[in-house]
Amino acid sequence: MADRKHRVVIVGGGFGGLLAAKSLGSANCEVVLIDRRNHHLFQPLLYQVATAALSPSEVAWPIRHLLRYHRNVRVIMATVTGVDTANHAVLLEDGSSENYDSLILATGAHHAYFGHDEWEAFAPGLKTVEDATAIRRKLLLAFEAVERETDPKRRQALLTFALIGGGPTGVEMAGAIVELGRASLRGQFQTIDPREMRVVLIEGGNKILGNFDEDLSGYALQSLRKMGVEVELGRPVTAVDADGVTFGDQRLEAKTIIWGAGVAASPVAKWLDIEGDKAGRIKVEPDLSVPGHRDIFVIGDAASILQENGKPVPGIAPAAKQQGRYVANLIRHRLGGNPPPPPFRYKHAGDLATIGKRSAIIDFGWIKLRGALAWWVWGLAHIYFLVETRTRIFITISWLWIYLSGNRSSRLITHGMAPHPKPLDEVDKG
Amino acid sequence: MADRKHRVVIVGGGFGGLLAAKSLGSANCEVVLIDRRNHHLFQPLLYQVATAALSPSEVAWPIRHLLRYHRNVRVIMATVTGVDTANHAVLLEDGSSENYDSLILATGAHHAYFGHDEWEAFAPGLKTVEDATAIRRKLLLAFEAVERETDPKRRQALLTFALIGGGPTGVEMAGAIVELGRASLRGQFQTIDPREMRVVLIEGGNKILGNFDEDLSGYALQSLRKMGVEVELGRPVTAVDADGVTFGDQRLEAKTIIWGAGVAASPVAKWLDIEGDKAGRIKVEPDLSVPGHRDIFVIGDAASILQENGKPVPGIAPAAKQQGRYVANLIRHRLGGNPPPPPFRYKHAGDLATIGKRSAIIDFGWIKLRGALAWWVWGLAHIYFLVETRTRIFITISWLWIYLSGNRSSRLITHGMAPHPKPLDEVDKG
Repeated sequence: MADRKHRVVIVGGGFGGLLAAKSLGSANCEVVLIDRRNHHLFQPLLYQVATAALSPSEVAWPIRHLLRYHRNVRVIMATVTGVDTANHAVLLEDGSSENYDSLILATGAHHAYFGHDEWEAFAPGLKTVEDATAIRRKLLLAFEAVERETDPKRRQALLTFALIGGGPTGVEMAGAIVELGRASLRGQFQTIDPREMRVVLIEGGNKILGNFDEDLSGYALQSLRKMGVEVELGRPVTAVDADGVTFGDQRLEAKTIIWGAGVAASPVAKWLDIEGDKAGRIKVEPDLSVPGHRDIFVIGDAASILQENGKPVPGIAPAAKQQGRYVANLIRHRLGGNPPPPPFRYKHAGDLATIGKRSAIIDFGWIKLRGALAWWVWGLAHIYFLVETRTRIFITISWLWIYLSGNRSSRLITHGMAPHPKPLDEVDKG
Repeated sequence: MADRKHRVVIVGGGFGGLLAAKSLGSANCEVVLIDRRNHHLFQPLLYQVATAALSPSEVAWPIRHLLRYHRNVRVIMATVTGVDTANHAVLLEDGSSENYDSLILATGAHHAYFGHDEWEAFAPGLKTVEDATAIRRKLLLAFEAVERETDPKRRQALLTFALIGGGPTGVEMAGAIVELGRASLRGQFQTIDPREMRVVLIEGGNKILGNFDEDLSGYALQSLRKMGVEVELGRPVTAVDADGVTFGDQRLEAKTIIWGAGVAASPVAKWLDIEGDKAGRIKVEPDLSVPGHRDIFVIGDAASILQENGKPVPGIAPAAKQQGRYVANLIRHRLGGNPPPPPFRYKHAGDLATIGKRSAIIDFGWIKLRGALAWWVWGLAHIYFLVETRTRIFITISWLWIYLSGNRSSRLITHGMAPHPKPLDEVDKG
């Protein structure tokens, strides 16, 4: 067994898992990356697929393509059902298993409905490519339905778009829906008056984009309102159904409702038979290992760990990437017989959020930006962080095209035909 | 009623319907175009979506976007269920109807299984965007499954791709699958030897691409075989099931089977209560009107009409476009009180078919081309015929990228996860 190589299994091909695999790509070990999908998803731009600005293949790439030059990495498309810690094996849905010496769990999070799972059917969230095309279909079908609807009340409900949650998803979607509506309505529908459209952003707390300071958050609020978005603060949602949403004591009739309020970690805690925090995350050790399991690491949205300032490490792409790189490095140290590296330390690069065409807010700590300049920086930063050259070219052209013409090119309704499209839950559970 | 405008209803936003709408776009009449989808589809390139070279939004555009400058054209997304000829009304699924003075039926065709509809579940055809992404998923999942399969017989069945029908769809798909396989296999799967892959094209007749002369058809056959495609001629398919296909007395174990053999017209004949030909098409008058109904026209794949040389007008895009333009012109003549134009006369511009990277055949009548030059002409011709400038840019870049790097960018598996993806028929009926 002397020549058997150390075997690292990574579950999840998101930002954390992909970085861990890349960082171990030339190490003296075997790496197996398991994901139930064949693609890595650039989630920060997923809302642009949902609002018809980009097409799915511009924000998602086959994982095995991204890792093609890392010869010691094997990619497997499979669904994990559990971890057998006693036998050091990851269990797969087809009954087979993958043995590990080190295990990195980077399974991310999905949207959560605060104990109201029945809301999901009416207010889909935005985590996967299928989520995005389903929301795109919902948005576009609403306009198609209005064009043929004569009842004023039903018209208004079809033209009312409710976003639940004032975080980045809600804010970015609100801005993009206003633009989609304006672009679509401009001369393309005969019965719709643009002023009929309502976009309502509902946030239970007292500010939107809570991770920004008052100044920038207030600017974002003002920008949204100037665009025509109705922002409702301070009243949490108490009911969601097929016809609308109730927040506080107010009822809003809306046929299109989108969920951006809560997330919960994937079932890592259950797999490890450990109690997670209230969002299902595993509280990890300073070296990101699981308490009692020095060979199992949890990174990204599935992990819970505090920064030096006492705040939790945020559930954003840069944090997951830093953690993936850290664990890969730690494993390299162990393989080399070196002393362990110092504990994981999160470096916060900054916060960015875009609000609509030509408006964004940025807090890099040392500098704060808002407005048009911030919007250009936001765009350039995202193009920079894209994984592939080809995608950079395509997204740059797509954005320039939209910027200059206002025309969103990916307005395809798929898996749904008028006037009786199947309910989302019949066609979108893949 | 003197100022009521003549009302033209067009059913179907394919090549024929779209051209008719555009040609009536400035006429002194009201035009209503009804389609159950929101997009026009550039079908000649749909096989490239199925083989991961292009993304859906590169070959499909919202119909109302394409007609946005034609102010007298109204676009409705709705499903037609019949025609009430006595009352001059098109009946819609939601119970409403649209009145017409002139009616243009351009509903196209769908794939047909020669009385074996049960084959569809195992051998999907390629007519819609959803068909294309379903086939793409099937192809890509086959490679993912092989990577984890150890049984040699099951591996071979997974790596065997059967195309039924030696027309353009079968030939183009065969070539593209070989390239997809080669690109995907190059360094991205650890257990697959490229030589394991088999692509088998099954044609019941004695030649492929039957519309070309012996010379070009023979060249195409030779090219395909040189690429590694096994072409089986002269034995029609007698059975298709989940594990393979039988043609003549030969059985081929293949997990991926694609249907490109037959088409049947949409239910226009039933709507009009007229007997169609054996493919369901309506035999139209020399002016493309329906016998006994001078105000109803059938164009494109749903119509049957002979050329002057006694051959039928082929079911291809240029024929549908010429017919759409002809009927629009005829209606303009009638509106102006002018004598009717001469009967419809189809002008055959030529036949083009691409076989694989750097190989195509072209017959313009006055010149015949084959090989690399034909392939470049094929590409330029298709870019020229694309509807939108933006798409021209994107497809040009996509093609150049694939040409130079061999990497197909749209290798996304959506609506399906390993290892137990849902059967196609559960997720793809939209």
